[in-house]
Amino acid sequence: MQKTDVAILGATGAVGQRFIQLLRDHPWFAVREVVGSSRSAGKSYGEAAHWILDGNPPEDIAQLTVKSLHDELTSPLVFSALPKEAAIDREEALAEAGHIVCTNASANRMVADVPLLLPEVNGDHLQLVDAQRRSRGWRSGALVANSNCTVMPVVMALKPLVKYAIRRLHLVSEQATSGAGYPGVSSLDILDNIVPFVPGDERKMETESRKMLGAFNGSSIDELGIVVSATCTRVPVVDGHLINISVELEEKPDLDAVIQDWISFRAPDPIPSLPSAPAHPLRYLEQIDRPQPRRDRDFGNGMVTSIGRLRECPVLGYKFAALSHNTIRGAAGCSILNAELLAVEGYIQGTRVAETATAT
Amino acid sequence: MQKTDVAILGATGAVGQRFIQLLRDHPWFAVREVVGSSRSAGKSYGEAAHWILDGNPPEDIAQLTVKSLHDELTSPLVFSALPKEAAIDREEALAEAGHIVCTNASANRMVADVPLLLPEVNGDHLQLVDAQRRSRGWRSGALVANSNCTVMPVVMALKPLVKYAIRRLHLVSEQATSGAGYPGVSSLDILDNIVPFVPGDERKMETESRKMLGAFNGSSIDELGIVVSATCTRVPVVDGHLINISVELEEKPDLDAVIQDWISFRAPDPIPSLPSAPAHPLRYLEQIDRPQPRRDRDFGNGMVTSIGRLRECPVLGYKFAALSHNTIRGAAGCSILNAELLAVEGYIQGTRVAETATAT
Amino acid sequence: MQKTDVAILGATGAVGQRFIQLLRDHPWFAVREVVGSSRSAGKSYGEAAHWILDGNPPEDIAQLTVKSLHDELTSPLVFSALPKEAAIDREEALAEAGHIVCTNASANRMVADVPLLLPEVNGDHLQLVDAQRRSRGWRSGALVANSNCTVMPVVMALKPLVKYAIRRLHLVSEQATSGAGYPGVSSLDILDNIVPFVPGDERKMETESRKMLGAFNGSSIDELGIVVSATCTRVPVVDGHLINISVELEEKPDLDAVIQDWISFRAPDPIPSLPSAPAHPLRYLEQIDRPQPRRDRDFGNGMVTSIGRLRECPVLGYKFAALSHNTIRGAAGCSILNAELLAVEGYIQGTRVAETATAT
Amino acid sequence: MQKTDVAILGATGAVGQRFIQLLRDHPWFAVREVVGSSRSAGKSYGEAAHWILDGNPPEDIAQLTVKSLHDELTSPLVFSALPKEAAIDREEALAEAGHIVCTNASANRMVADVPLLLPEVNGDHLQLVDAQRRSRGWRSGALVANSNCTVMPVVMALKPLVKYAIRRLHLVSEQATSGAGYPGVSSLDILDNIVPFVPGDERKMETESRKMLGAFNGSSIDELGIVVSATCTRVPVVDGHLINISVELEEKPDLDAVIQDWISFRAPDPIPSLPSAPAHPLRYLEQIDRPQPRRDRDFGNGMVTSIGRLRECPVLGYKFAALSHNTIRGAAGCSILNAELLAVEGYIQGTRVAETATAT
Repeated sequence: MQKTDVAILGATGAVGQRFIQLLRDHPWFAVREVVGSSRSAGKSYGEAAHWILDGNPPEDIAQLTVKSLHDELTSPLVFSALPKEAAIDREEALAEAGHIVCTNASANRMVADVPLLLPEVNGDHLQLVDAQRRSRGWRSGALVANSNCTVMPVVMALKPLVKYAIRRLHLVSEQATSGAGYPGVSSLDILDNIVPFVPGDERKMETESRKMLGAFNGSSIDELGIVVSATCTRVPVVDGHLINISVELEEKPDLDAVIQDWISFRAPDPIPSLPSAPAHPLRYLEQIDRPQPRRDRDFGNGMVTSIGRLRECPVLGYKFAALSHNTIRGAAGCSILNAELLAVEGYIQGTRVAETATAT
Repeated sequence: MQKTDVAILGATGAVGQRFIQLLRDHPWFAVREVVGSSRSAGKSYGEAAHWILDGNPPEDIAQLTVKSLHDELTSPLVFSALPKEAAIDREEALAEAGHIVCTNASANRMVADVPLLLPEVNGDHLQLVDAQRRSRGWRSGALVANSNCTVMPVVMALKPLVKYAIRRLHLVSEQATSGAGYPGVSSLDILDNIVPFVPGDERKMETESRKMLGAFNGSSIDELGIVVSATCTRVPVVDGHLINISVELEEKPDLDAVIQDWISFRAPDPIPSLPSAPAHPLRYLEQIDRPQPRRDRDFGNGMVTSIGRLRECPVLGYKFAALSHNTIRGAAGCSILNAELLAVEGYIQGTRVAETATAT
Repeated sequence: MQKTDVAILGATGAVGQRFIQLLRDHPWFAVREVVGSSRSAGKSYGEAAHWILDGNPPEDIAQLTVKSLHDELTSPLVFSALPKEAAIDREEALAEAGHIVCTNASANRMVADVPLLLPEVNGDHLQLVDAQRRSRGWRSGALVANSNCTVMPVVMALKPLVKYAIRRLHLVSEQATSGAGYPGVSSLDILDNIVPFVPGDERKMETESRKMLGAFNGSSIDELGIVVSATCTRVPVVDGHLINISVELEEKPDLDAVIQDWISFRAPDPIPSLPSAPAHPLRYLEQIDRPQPRRDRDFGNGMVTSIGRLRECPVLGYKFAALSHNTIRGAAGCSILNAELLAVEGYIQGTRVAETATAT
Repeated sequence: MQKTDVAILGATGAVGQRFIQLLRDHPWFAVREVVGSSRSAGKSYGEAAHWILDGNPPEDIAQLTVKSLHDELTSPLVFSALPKEAAIDREEALAEAGHIVCTNASANRMVADVPLLLPEVNGDHLQLVDAQRRSRGWRSGALVANSNCTVMPVVMALKPLVKYAIRRLHLVSEQATSGAGYPGVSSLDILDNIVPFVPGDERKMETESRKMLGAFNGSSIDELGIVVSATCTRVPVVDGHLINISVELEEKPDLDAVIQDWISFRAPDPIPSLPSAPAHPLRYLEQIDRPQPRRDRDFGNGMVTSIGRLRECPVLGYKFAALSHNTIRGAAGCSILNAELLAVEGYIQGTRVAETATAT
């Protein structure tokens, strides 16, 4: 089977490197084009990228020549790890030119006809792509976003609770520094310290969660009408965002029922058979002092959300902690899973993996 | 002027060392007796204590012989940094024997006739000592507690807001490891990690805050009838507890009015003239990313509570962050301030500092 | 094929947990007995062990009942993660009773007839077991030690340089806190700090290196006659010991020749075919700022030693940095590799894996 | 007494902020001009500087308008915290224009007629200023440098040992991240990690130490003819550079004699009476696990070098650890002490503090 060619925008940055790492042995996709800033363009990737993940970049990628942002691309599938401003400019143009653009950038997330996709939570929002193509006159291209890395564990943990009618949500995050990219957070700001503010993230948690948990009405998304209060803080942790969640539910399930909802949660077909999908997207930890970033972030190749400490909240009814790997499940890994769903649903032209996977 | 002799229980531990450090040049009190475990008793303090603060223990203290827990003490004033179990046993016996016992232990905090004292917040609770002496038949002794180190910044920040009628409180702490004593938190549990659970602290935040913000009714404390939900987490920070606070007020003051309440907050006389009292117990930081533990914990010799990020909370109305130095203002420093108030109010027998201070 | 039964001494501690983690899917060995302190004995492992590694202990191990140190064991192969004092007592008795004891404890390392085994470096020292059995009258038992975790990367990196005649060695380590076990190093000692002293390790580096690089003379080990100066420091890193090494060689190879020696270094047969052996035990990193603990410790499943920064030393001639994962290659992983070599060489009674492996 | 006006170049950076913090209540000097990049020029200092030290910048400084690098300055005394390239350009021009320039930049350190001044070590090198003025035709201006922050504790600790004839020196540093300025070291490079390379510092340790320990021969400096091997590493510590030092001495003093040399070390008059000079520049710690950055860096207001762990080195004879606060004694604090010596020796025009201080 021929793999689908992939281009990565913002390939030398922290999230770009995660894309390359996670796609190293991908069964369906193969990285053929890497796109960087004007400073990197023309160099080999190995030379241009200051590799900050474990080990070294894969040999074959290291030898690719970095393209510049406005070079034409040949890959049908494009992953974007661009900063917001560059993304505004470029992502739409690429989708218009016929590419499937799966983006981790925030620029287009709240645009009405762009799905803010987390397959296990709102895989059906993918249908928005048809509306998007109709309204914009695109034939083969599409623009699909994944959420902010801090919102991600929240909506994942809440998805099985939507049936109880969520009313109000109070969120306090303790976020890893990798969420700010590289070089990102200065060591002088975070060693032996906490920064009780993360630019932009509180607003994103309040808006993106409503869209992601919303319902596709046949042509657009009806946002979930919940009240959300978010506080975002930065802590001296490399990877893994921990969110302290308090939630008010109209129905009042037992704590045990909620835990059971999490444990038994499965994504609908064909999502569980996608290469990057964990068998169980949620895990509940019985230990009283878990989840913990360093010990739980890598579970399920960093694609599983870990939950713990469910107990009564005197103010809102229920409270618990949720944790996800922010640069895997909360960024590059989610974009890849989104692309896998697009592939299997036949949205990526010339990609035959769809049938194979569905057959499985 | 003769200084009052002081004994320190649990003198070799982390909080015991803070007592010694903070009393080094105290104008009224002088450490004359240090009490340790059976393992330490009989050794010189310098030999028995593994000093974990900056520099070395003061020379004169290093040469004191460590007494054992049941040795008789001659000092009228006793500071206790005992673990809970030892405290239950010993603190009451010492108060009964005529000592003024200012304790940082949790054992007696919620006992009805024991003031849980934070002078700027509830200095008038000191009158409970008279009830305590009457009911227990004590003449010169007394037992006065200070609060848990995580509760402390919360009640300090809320004190000026009591007038708006506090209804509900939602607290998420990010606590330094020194709060667990020494050796306390293992480095393997906290490097590049968060532990989302601190044994006992959530309950303490929910109970102690109601007592501390309560009113003295002439013979006992009427607790403040507020609903409190607390989540306590441990982060890789040496000193300084940061609390993310959301609060519901019956009255709805402007944000500016609340900031003004904090800035203009002063303790009633004679508290501001006590040697360890900061001129302004509260500080509001205008920067959007403050307070921060490493940069703000030492302000005002570690005795000032720093507040920042006041903004609207979609769920409870108001939210902000508060920070205090947990082993200074939240532990030893608070006990010392409590003792200074006891001295100036004439509760410590044979201590003449009272008049001097009042005269000032 | 039947797997060999394995017992783990000190199974609830930090290194004991690594044994369990690394043996989870071992092709030859299966953990059947776990031995703990009197406090743990009688409980299930899941209950007794405060699991500090990623995730949870394997289900089947969690259900084993913890035995006490003096219970009889039925497993022919015993891994020891005991503290030194308990090891002195127990390891020799078990070997005498017929068990193969592969120990990570320091108690017996410098005993003359105990091989201090690092297969790629001194696999031939295994022959000392025959001398050991003869002199002690043991038939099926044996006692084999692995080195201190800080010595390990040093001898591994030096092995290919022995041919140049090593004269003097100057070592400064920057060690991870996991080297001290759990709870081990207090967070208050190491956050935002360095402790420039690690009890016992400097002496071990100076003695164990000479034994490990020594030659088996047919009946005992002739130590390598080198002068060694070691300084050991502890830094705020979870796993991975970095050693700054300066070395004087009698011959004066080019820097490139030395790098080539490292890159081309292979262990003699049958070592490369052992399940836990990395294909290439050494890796040289060209980047000027490597090796780094967090980014390089896990290379080759934590079994490869990474080297970097080879350059001239104005004092001793050559200097470079070497790094190994201290609780994998430097502890449990090395013991397991030692046991694999014992198995393949026919030292473990009733173990048929030897033939299989040799056949491969 | 009128204070001398001071300008600070690079005032908004990390070292610039230290200058402002340390000069807050200086008895002789008052900051009147702050100079920043073109991005900061024209703004108030409070607005332009992202203050990274404890608390806030002093009120009066916060209100100064930031000047740009090529604006004319009126202050006779100029402290420079410029990056190297800007320093090359500007420092010499300011000295030529009549200013006394005390610089922390590396640009001019190894220029033959520029004193590389650490008063307690080589206060007599100040006489080089006369040669400098003669050869360059300057009348009131001068250019005086202080050393690299990692070299500083080395030469301070070695100064009392020069009499034993130092031959060879082997240095391995563990450096705090503040040494790289702000934002400097990314948190992603240093959390749970070590970077075994600090650009430029190894060469500086090998060259600057020879100049600083050299002798003024009446017109220039004869460098000390020692062999130096330096390895520089970066660790997750905020402030305080720890250096592991091995040294070969031609004479062979007892260890006790060396400790006595350190304890009894004093700077010659008038240095001990300068406002920023510690009474004892060196401190020897008897505890086996000291000095430690977090616990010892602030001793003597960050101006004292702490030494510990003196013992025999099998390779070079003597080894020990030395620690200094890198942004106080190793940077801004040293520049200020240099300026105080210049003032008291009459080099700063219109400064009358000289007589006062000498009189004391």
